Amino acid sequence: MDAMNQRITLAERPVGIVTDRCFARDDVPLPAPGPGEILVEVTWLSIDPTIRGWMAYDTYLPAIEIGAPIRSGGLGTVIESNNDAYPVGATVFGMTGWQQYAVLGRGTRVVPDGVPPEAALSIFGLTGITAYIGLLEIGRPVAGETVLVSGAAGATGSVVGQIAKLKGCRVVGLAGSAEKCAWLTGELGFDAAINYKIENVRQAIRAACPDGVDVFFDNVGGEILEAAIANLARRGRIVLCGAISQYNDEAPRPGPNNLGVLISKRGRMEGFIILDYMDRAGEAIAGLGGWVMEGKLTYKTDIVDGLDNAPAAFSRLFTGANTGKVMVRL
Amino acid sequence: MDAMNQRITLAERPVGIVTDRCFARDDVPLPAPGPGEILVEVTWLSIDPTIRGWMAYDTYLPAIEIGAPIRSGGLGTVIESNNDAYPVGATVFGMTGWQQYAVLGRGTRVVPDGVPPEAALSIFGLTGITAYIGLLEIGRPVAGETVLVSGAAGATGSVVGQIAKLKGCRVVGLAGSAEKCAWLTGELGFDAAINYKIENVRQAIRAACPDGVDVFFDNVGGEILEAAIANLARRGRIVLCGAISQYNDEAPRPGPNNLGVLISKRGRMEGFIILDYMDRAGEAIAGLGGWVMEGKLTYKTDIVDGLDNAPAAFSRLFTGANTGKVMVRL
Repeated sequence: MDAMNQRITLAERPVGIVTDRCFARDDVPLPAPGPGEILVEVTWLSIDPTIRGWMAYDTYLPAIEIGAPIRSGGLGTVIESNNDAYPVGATVFGMTGWQQYAVLGRGTRVVPDGVPPEAALSIFGLTGITAYIGLLEIGRPVAGETVLVSGAAGATGSVVGQIAKLKGCRVVGLAGSAEKCAWLTGELGFDAAINYKIENVRQAIRAACPDGVDVFFDNVGGEILEAAIANLARRGRIVLCGAISQYNDEAPRPGPNNLGVLISKRGRMEGFIILDYMDRAGEAIAGLGGWVMEGKLTYKTDIVDGLDNAPAAFSRLFTGANTGKVMVRL
Repeated sequence: MDAMNQRITLAERPVGIVTDRCFARDDVPLPAPGPGEILVEVTWLSIDPTIRGWMAYDTYLPAIEIGAPIRSGGLGTVIESNNDAYPVGATVFGMTGWQQYAVLGRGTRVVPDGVPPEAALSIFGLTGITAYIGLLEIGRPVAGETVLVSGAAGATGSVVGQIAKLKGCRVVGLAGSAEKCAWLTGELGFDAAINYKIENVRQAIRAACPDGVDVFFDNVGGEILEAAIANLARRGRIVLCGAISQYNDEAPRPGPNNLGVLISKRGRMEGFIILDYMDRAGEAIAGLGGWVMEGKLTYKTDIVDGLDNAPAAFSRLFTGANTGKVMVRL
């Protein structure tokens, strides 16, 4: 009997919150790699908020096609190779999708021996690179400045805050529970943390950032973005990394009512897509790796077991159940 | 009898549309210049939207005090001088305020002989410098790109569009009447103009900018800003110069509902205050002056006579009655 490939595919496009109806499960014959391609057995999946956009409509990538496996980064072991760069047995990172086996080609990267999969998918994966490039290249913090991070207990935000500390900044995080806030100020060394679910966010930011916010690294959008704008320092920079608070909106929600602050404070708001910076991944990983080895940078993972549980793992991002990087172990 | 100084002062802070109740008229003794200062007889006033902010609250400058003359740029003739840099008889530009006589000090600039007052207050004044620096420094247009300008028939917008044309861009303007649009595409050489009062702005921008908007120079804010964001090209830049559509709002209005576009398109939105760039005024004036002398850059003025009519001149900015720079001749 031929080997089969279990997959989780897109059954229908989400409107509002992603429900089980959006997903289907199927079993298809194992795909065969073409020239230059490889076949991998998928071992880990990276579960990221941006998948919500891919499921719904064209964004910076075309929408996932109905019936196709959910697009996702992941790790796999090469089991068949038509490309000497990826020998059989190697661990690779690529866009595996939510399935047991994947054919990968260009853009696949070999994970060096000794890097644990949790690190390869988080701190040394797109998450860490996003935090590093987004903060340093777009936010451009200077020692002594105040950096505010939303989604600060999330995969990206928790790394952003630590990098900002390493660069000599005062760092304030926004997160959704007392436990998350305690983790930020305790283990991660943030100077302050704000529980946005129980505090008046605008006032709490003002209290925690008395000289204003020089850099706001935003993962959530919405009211928190408006509150941060209200507290922007002169020449403040807002890095738009994500807007998870709005990904499940059924209709566009009004935006911040105070963009005039960008004029009076000479502010800059800028979005980015990390795929544009992959030529600098090596620089980012080297920087992050150095800090990890010196014990100055830590990361947390939120691991869910089993391909079948990928949809449940995905929903953790939107309920705020996770602290750190959500990933699925197959 | 001592000479008196007629002034128009701030009687009460505006809420919503600025009415006559906001202004008072008085006569006070002629002020005396201190050491290093000069006394000028005011000859022209520059009427600018930013005055609306100064009347209401602290912005990038402190609010005008109740009972003080309305803060305003203006031209004057030096009639008494304690500063060799400003000899009696010279024409100077400074923050004269809405009054017949003003004491000026640091920051006052001599207007070279031969520059007509209309030019000194518009194309070679803060208006022209704002257009030059705002477009070239913040917007950074590249030849072949598409530049969209709102308030395009206004003092700043009309200059921005012409500079963008001189830099080899495709230029589209938004204005509020058929006459203004005809002026833009006719005399000023814009590639297209959109009458925002009768067209579906979002669709009209899409039609006029089929490859998207690379640079949006925004003077108005509000729904036009949202429509421009919706049409942003990849790596598009939005220069926030003003938001005149919102200056009379009694309460903050919801902002653009599509800031996520700044992420997917890697967009940048940036505000600026021209006072930060006054060290580059000479460079801007040289550039603008060269184009004016070559006949490649034109400007229009909207002149109102008499100090008493300054409030009426000011209101022309908000009704859209003006084409080009509003100024008052005393």
